Amino acid sequence: MNDKKLKILVFGAGGVGAYFGGRLAQAGAEVATVCRSDYESVKKFGYRIGSIAGDFEFIPVKVCHSAADYHDTADIVMVTTKVLPGISVPELIRPAISKNTSIFIIQNGIDVEKDFAATFPENEIISAIAYIGVFREGGGRITHQGAGRLRAGTYPEGNTSTRLKLIAELFKKSNVECEIVSDIVRTRWEKLVWNVPFNPVSVLAGGVDTREMVLNPELETLCICLMHEVCAVAKACGKELAHDVAEKNINYTRTFPPYKTSMLLDYENGRPLEVDAILGSVIRNADAHNVPVPHIRAIYALLSSVDRNLNKL
Amino acid sequence: MNDKKLKILVFGAGGVGAYFGGRLAQAGAEVATVCRSDYESVKKFGYRIGSIAGDFEFIPVKVCHSAADYHDTADIVMVTTKVLPGISVPELIRPAISKNTSIFIIQNGIDVEKDFAATFPENEIISAIAYIGVFREGGGRITHQGAGRLRAGTYPEGNTSTRLKLIAELFKKSNVECEIVSDIVRTRWEKLVWNVPFNPVSVLAGGVDTREMVLNPELETLCICLMHEVCAVAKACGKELAHDVAEKNINYTRTFPPYKTSMLLDYENGRPLEVDAILGSVIRNADAHNVPVPHIRAIYALLSSVDRNLNKL
Repeated sequence: MNDKKLKILVFGAGGVGAYFGGRLAQAGAEVATVCRSDYESVKKFGYRIGSIAGDFEFIPVKVCHSAADYHDTADIVMVTTKVLPGISVPELIRPAISKNTSIFIIQNGIDVEKDFAATFPENEIISAIAYIGVFREGGGRITHQGAGRLRAGTYPEGNTSTRLKLIAELFKKSNVECEIVSDIVRTRWEKLVWNVPFNPVSVLAGGVDTREMVLNPELETLCICLMHEVCAVAKACGKELAHDVAEKNINYTRTFPPYKTSMLLDYENGRPLEVDAILGSVIRNADAHNVPVPHIRAIYALLSSVDRNLNKL
Repeated sequence: MNDKKLKILVFGAGGVGAYFGGRLAQAGAEVATVCRSDYESVKKFGYRIGSIAGDFEFIPVKVCHSAADYHDTADIVMVTTKVLPGISVPELIRPAISKNTSIFIIQNGIDVEKDFAATFPENEIISAIAYIGVFREGGGRITHQGAGRLRAGTYPEGNTSTRLKLIAELFKKSNVECEIVSDIVRTRWEKLVWNVPFNPVSVLAGGVDTREMVLNPELETLCICLMHEVCAVAKACGKELAHDVAEKNINYTRTFPPYKTSMLLDYENGRPLEVDAILGSVIRNADAHNVPVPHIRAIYALLSSVDRNLNKL
């Protein structure tokens, strides 16, 4: 371990950013945050995180309006914004990036790294997926209610690095599992096998929890169809997934206590939905390889309309 | 024309029942109604119908709680309830049926006549579809805002009869077009080509009007997929529809002023949705003939869940 404290800027400190950023601060990193929604209260009081792994406070070393407001460059810029169209996050984080900065992306979906890699071709990109049930209550309060681990790998090689090892060690100090995987893109596809059915269907089926989706035979069948389509696209992209990945996801979801998906929580709170990150990116890959995805396309048509109408209100 | 006035009992006098029943009363028939929602106000004041074809009042000769409350048998029992599972309308109308009663069904969907034909094998069944935008405002007020015609034929022969001719003549007196068709089952399939996409999608896409569904390319594609599946099932059931029926329905909907589908109005008012009549019946026919209907099945899974959750509230 080097003695110099790792300087981390969390860009987009909602539930995921505040939780994982807070855990890194607990482990001794110098963590600053860029946040907009709760700026005033976070500036005054920091974050109060109610967590199944133990409540804790997270007082960032600095709370910023924007990356320019950081007036520094970071060792690691941790990107935890939602993936929404029309927002170029690479441009927004530029002021905090030096040539030694690693960009640590914790986001859903496929191809989320591409814009960062194109904008910062010299910088290391670490790509990660969070398995966590966490949301922002407002006023700097965060509720962490399920799971709480990460899988991460360098992009695109999908291997480890000194920085990534350092991050994983820091997380370990705070009892957060950060598994280093050799092929993060494959891991992203595996996560999509769950996200593509359950997130959209929870909204479109009238606001149902995870258990309802696997106990109702028609919804379960729909979810399995969607999963099979994701697998077909993944395979065409060179990432053949395990033959029983759909079955395993269904069984896993059956045994898990029922909960509302993050997309359903976003919907109920009138927040934009990650339609493009979760469905649009799969459809683009499907089109590029001529893989038929009729169910994903149908769900995409409905959900993007729901999202548009939600934001009209 | 016989001099004796035709005795008609309208069973389920919501928008459709009150409108067409009222037009038959205008033409000189003795029209009674069974209604539950607005019973008290209708009993006192009758129906006030605001109509694009001219406002009018409709004072039923009798307003009943149930068919038993009619204390008579009708020449025609006009069934205009929604098609909802768990309600056996044939049993409910039995008290008003004699061997000379014709059962005149104005409902959406396919196979809606079967229960009536099985319960009353000796009675004439006239099957009709309404093309109308009409809804109940409450307190006996009805708003008629679009179209307003019928297609009707005897079931299952799908031809005309003395009674049906009489009904058509009465409607004609009130300027309501009631076209007698030789194959009402085919006409039902044709109507489903419109209903199967536009009713469910208007709800599932977050509350969109007809124009939005044909102007948004993804929603339009979804609607066309659904239409093609309906056509495939119709063909398997011996009713091959015109090759351009989907295209014609899209074009027709493009030129029409935008409006909310009846299912969307039901949804917005917390009323049960006709999921089974519009989608379930098509799926049963598809299964019977091994026709793949992946899009209809997906929409059915989502919409029946929405309907269940709607009625839970």
